[in-house]
Amino acid sequence: MPHREAELMILDSEQHRISNLSRRHFVAALTTASVMPLVAMEAREESLISPGSERGVLDLDHSSHAKLKTIPIGALEIRNGFWASRRTTNTAVSLPTMHDQMEHHGRFDNYRRWDGKRQAYRNDFHSNNPPGLRQGADSEVYKWLEAIAFALQSNTSPELKTTADRAISIVLGAQEPSGYLDTYFVGDKIDERMLPTTQMTGHEIYCLGHLLMAGIAYYRATGDRALLNAGIRFFDKFLIPQYGPGASQKPLLSGHPGSEMALVELYRTTSDRRYLDLAAYLLKGDERIPLERSGSVHYAHIPFTSTYMFSGIPFTSRTKLAGHAVRALYACCGAADYYLETGDPEYRKALDTLWQDLVTHKMYVTGAVGVLNGEEAFGDPYELPNERAYAESCASIGNMMWNWRLLCASGETRFADTMERVLYNGVNSGMSLDGESYCYRNPLSFDPASGTPSRKEWWNVNCCPPNLERTFASLPGYFYSTSEDGIWVHLYDNSTLNWQLTNGNGVTITQKTNYPWDGDVELTIVTAQPTEFTLYVRIPGWSKFTKANVKGAPVDDVRPATYLPIHRRWSGTETVSLHFDMTPQILAATGRVESDARRVAIQRGPLVYCMEQIDQEPAAAMDAYSIDLNGVATDRIKATYEPSLLGGVTVLRAPGQVDERTPTSSDQLYRSIEVSPARSKSATLTLIPYYAWANREPCAMQVWIPYVRRDRV
Amino acid sequence: MPHREAELMILDSEQHRISNLSRRHFVAALTTASVMPLVAMEAREESLISPGSERGVLDLDHSSHAKLKTIPIGALEIRNGFWASRRTTNTAVSLPTMHDQMEHHGRFDNYRRWDGKRQAYRNDFHSNNPPGLRQGADSEVYKWLEAIAFALQSNTSPELKTTADRAISIVLGAQEPSGYLDTYFVGDKIDERMLPTTQMTGHEIYCLGHLLMAGIAYYRATGDRALLNAGIRFFDKFLIPQYGPGASQKPLLSGHPGSEMALVELYRTTSDRRYLDLAAYLLKGDERIPLERSGSVHYAHIPFTSTYMFSGIPFTSRTKLAGHAVRALYACCGAADYYLETGDPEYRKALDTLWQDLVTHKMYVTGAVGVLNGEEAFGDPYELPNERAYAESCASIGNMMWNWRLLCASGETRFADTMERVLYNGVNSGMSLDGESYCYRNPLSFDPASGTPSRKEWWNVNCCPPNLERTFASLPGYFYSTSEDGIWVHLYDNSTLNWQLTNGNGVTITQKTNYPWDGDVELTIVTAQPTEFTLYVRIPGWSKFTKANVKGAPVDDVRPATYLPIHRRWSGTETVSLHFDMTPQILAATGRVESDARRVAIQRGPLVYCMEQIDQEPAAAMDAYSIDLNGVATDRIKATYEPSLLGGVTVLRAPGQVDERTPTSSDQLYRSIEVSPARSKSATLTLIPYYAWANREPCAMQVWIPYVRRDRV
Repeated sequence: MPHREAELMILDSEQHRISNLSRRHFVAALTTASVMPLVAMEAREESLISPGSERGVLDLDHSSHAKLKTIPIGALEIRNGFWASRRTTNTAVSLPTMHDQMEHHGRFDNYRRWDGKRQAYRNDFHSNNPPGLRQGADSEVYKWLEAIAFALQSNTSPELKTTADRAISIVLGAQEPSGYLDTYFVGDKIDERMLPTTQMTGHEIYCLGHLLMAGIAYYRATGDRALLNAGIRFFDKFLIPQYGPGASQKPLLSGHPGSEMALVELYRTTSDRRYLDLAAYLLKGDERIPLERSGSVHYAHIPFTSTYMFSGIPFTSRTKLAGHAVRALYACCGAADYYLETGDPEYRKALDTLWQDLVTHKMYVTGAVGVLNGEEAFGDPYELPNERAYAESCASIGNMMWNWRLLCASGETRFADTMERVLYNGVNSGMSLDGESYCYRNPLSFDPASGTPSRKEWWNVNCCPPNLERTFASLPGYFYSTSEDGIWVHLYDNSTLNWQLTNGNGVTITQKTNYPWDGDVELTIVTAQPTEFTLYVRIPGWSKFTKANVKGAPVDDVRPATYLPIHRRWSGTETVSLHFDMTPQILAATGRVESDARRVAIQRGPLVYCMEQIDQEPAAAMDAYSIDLNGVATDRIKATYEPSLLGGVTVLRAPGQVDERTPTSSDQLYRSIEVSPARSKSATLTLIPYYAWANREPCAMQVWIPYVRRDRV
Repeated sequence: MPHREAELMILDSEQHRISNLSRRHFVAALTTASVMPLVAMEAREESLISPGSERGVLDLDHSSHAKLKTIPIGALEIRNGFWASRRTTNTAVSLPTMHDQMEHHGRFDNYRRWDGKRQAYRNDFHSNNPPGLRQGADSEVYKWLEAIAFALQSNTSPELKTTADRAISIVLGAQEPSGYLDTYFVGDKIDERMLPTTQMTGHEIYCLGHLLMAGIAYYRATGDRALLNAGIRFFDKFLIPQYGPGASQKPLLSGHPGSEMALVELYRTTSDRRYLDLAAYLLKGDERIPLERSGSVHYAHIPFTSTYMFSGIPFTSRTKLAGHAVRALYACCGAADYYLETGDPEYRKALDTLWQDLVTHKMYVTGAVGVLNGEEAFGDPYELPNERAYAESCASIGNMMWNWRLLCASGETRFADTMERVLYNGVNSGMSLDGESYCYRNPLSFDPASGTPSRKEWWNVNCCPPNLERTFASLPGYFYSTSEDGIWVHLYDNSTLNWQLTNGNGVTITQKTNYPWDGDVELTIVTAQPTEFTLYVRIPGWSKFTKANVKGAPVDDVRPATYLPIHRRWSGTETVSLHFDMTPQILAATGRVESDARRVAIQRGPLVYCMEQIDQEPAAAMDAYSIDLNGVATDRIKATYEPSLLGGVTVLRAPGQVDERTPTSSDQLYRSIEVSPARSKSATLTLIPYYAWANREPCAMQVWIPYVRRDRV
């Protein structure tokens, strides 16, 4: 059945759900974006595509417990700066090459195989799956489509839209009349569909969650609801009638969380409370499913526990982050979304407890999480090995998305600081500078002798690459928020916001900066008519001494880790200038972190730095270098912007030393060193931003650097 | 059915198997040990108990590929020294208190529950197991009985024998007429008996392997074969008719290796090749059992793979130690035993490859193995975290037993050195000095803030305590070996060997030493008649400069990590004196071991040292101390024997420094340190032998100590 027929078949029943989609118009004078008539599906044509959209990364306009409201992705233009080059590469290189990679690796063939011959069993490959076919693979296609959708919300791109439309057509061709859509549990695998074990490991509703998110974003970008309809069709026709808490329904397990946040966003998009209720049901778990409900973190030998899957027991009963890191953080996103809609204090309490567990016990200095323990999982408190970090790109993205939701709920800088940390470091490292290869793991030290590749153009489980692409594509949505009393600045880069206050008054804010390479940011605020509101300016926690000027007058008492409230009657064109403290910071971990003992990490601005062996002079084994922390060490670390290195980065040079060693046999685990272990000589250590590692020839890398110090009492 | 009736019932069929048990008599003039008539079971009486036995830890007399033959445990008396106090405590305190602990925790009730009422189902505790009942619990009783059996081979103890006899009677009361004996898979669990999943996790034949080992040891100690018969009965009547490689037999999986070495020892005891064949079958795995056979080390999500269980695929196909550490090392013991009987070169090759993997990638400096990774398992190469070491006492014992077997096969010091390392450190730390509490894990650093107890009188899975007891009880069997051309000295302590060469000539060797506290050992060799043979004297690898004198004349070119061959015609009383180099050694790990980077461990003689916080002055957090490695650092480490400390230990004092820090909030994972991280002042670090840690109040401990060094080129 061609997908358009199928879509028309269910159009009437879904019509009522798409509502409130024109609740507010983008009225700022500087844009010419047209608003499409959203209920007229028949009128869907290229001419109706809106280059900007009126929804943000999330649509929090009617979320009663969102202190901050999102701005549309299309309302912010990022240009000529740190993120612009990344985003240009993403659109021009990553998204098209990922299409080709997916084609090459059979991701589209998975759908084509079922187009028009849905009665056939795949007995041509009975026991051997075709290449590219695996549980959960569909989600990769959806994340990539969501990335294109976000990209289209920033810029019209007929090529990308054509590519996406073709892919959507391929996807829709495989949806069954029942609404079921998964390219794995078809044919001779049809009997495994929605089995309890499949719910645990099969990623069915996980994939459909990603389909919803892609469908919503594509709808917001283009007005085309075909993909969104496919997701709605799955839930309305196939899932909800059969699965849920009702006595006549079969129990449902999230298995791999992700669909919770998608269902809340579908609720926001349709106002249909059934989707919010389904999210709540998944977050609570169904007692009819016999999972251990103790919350034990000991998942060994029984991996698919409620702990490992971070689902199946009430989210509100959780006190520790444990189990599969992406599952856990996606569940936290879903729970935060649920809180934003309901204000349920039990959710807020659990989210706060889990967040404290994250930042006091389980997060790398790059904002990444997860340990190479065979489970892609959180370790124990303080278990933060550097070479053996799992630090999956998807988990960093989950961490960013979770902190974004907590920031929207609270307006608290601790969440913005954590979001910035993970964005600039643990997320940003995931994609190569040329936009063509990706890290799955983002370890904090690397030894090429391990034989492990850092970046690949394609991973067998290719979840991270399109996830990175959608994150960079949606980035404008994270820069600003609005609240009842004003507008909030979270992130800094050359950009122009063209949006409005909640009272409907238009405002543009232009940032001029060389952030994160230097700490000066000039904000130019233009209001179409004089308006009283508060501009909340984020002062990052890492900026110990910040100067702020409003119309040239200095502001007193600017404290780190706050939103500086600038309340005034804004009129015409006004400027706020900020000067953040870019002195390199020397970070030490608490003593319980065995892997960071007697080491420091260097951070400058939001960027965590690392040493790559290729930059060091004289050449030596990575573990031969020490940083010299005598005196006021931060004063001795010199920053130099090098435009031709790694796309332009500020390099740090720090005083240090290098051991002179006799090479030892690598097959000797322990050796006796009879006298002083090594003599050393002075050296200058060269550090590059961590995100830029592994963009040249493979070489050793470390974030945490041993230090020496000579001063004695 | 009372157990004696059951035993008589099968006596005839087993009679033929106990043979060759009087092949050689202990003829040295200094002993009065009587040799019992081993075939006359009816004559079993107290008067027939032999205080010494003619078998060693293993019986290698007829093992054609054993270069070295064992000496009987009863042939060596250890007295007034390092091991004597440990062994006295073991017999006087540990073995009796362990009896009481086992009684208290229901281990004997597990058997009593089935004595005489074997038709009853345990419907009184249908869904809740009684306390003390768990899969594999029987093995704890057997290890404890084996420990008593070894103790009785050294010294007559009517009390211990009475205790053991009573326990044996309780055990035998639960054996079914079928031969089946396991206190878990009875009653309402009878249908789970020997199921494939039970073979993986149920520890049935693992327990029976321990029953065999206990039965053999007890038989050798006392002549009482009742316990041995019970084990034989299980294999002969129940297991072998039903399970094995034959077309009419069901497939069998080792699941938790251990029975392989027991079956080889049963073969050595009975000359019945069926037991050797069964061991070979288990070591090879049965292809009818559908396990992944790739040897992949990735056991996540599917824990009970052939990798994790270290069974189910051909042992000879293995190239890496992986999976559950005790399983892996027990399998290596069984494979080495199989090699000792058959000389199969494929086994030798696999054993060598695995041993290299152990010592170059996966062994702690204490000889312990295994990482706290939720699986009690080997980690990846160089994954050797200190606080998160698993380092289970049982795994250390497995490592010691494996190296002992490889030493017997080869006469190579590398195995003796490794055996000594793990015995004095990783094994020895397992039991408290008072003999009443035990470490399950033996980590290399400890922080009481973790809330984890180090030692307990009883562990829920109580495998380690009786395993430690049997190791200390069997220790005399590891000191010496004989070969065709002489006698080998492996370990040093005050002791007298009273044994014979392979030609039957009696010899006594007395060691006089204060080892391991100092390095002087005087060996007095007395031969009843002049005899030409080689005395192979082990020169430990850690002794860089060893002096040896034979009858007062110095021996040239004494090299570390060799057996010094002293070939001569020995006559009357002669002396060999040794002086080992007890200079403290400073050990560094290879750079790939993240947890040991920029740290050193101190070893003196065979003992690895550690710092306990309680000994440090001034008091500070453990991570504030550094050892000062300037100059010839080994000369600056001072050794002092302190008779009143920890039962008498040599303490090391090393120059160092301690940081002066402002306390930081413990809930801050990363903090910015603006200048030099801390100032420091000189301090003297106090180190105690690692084995003695956690014998005072709980406090922080570390083996690997950060170092400082000031010399520059």
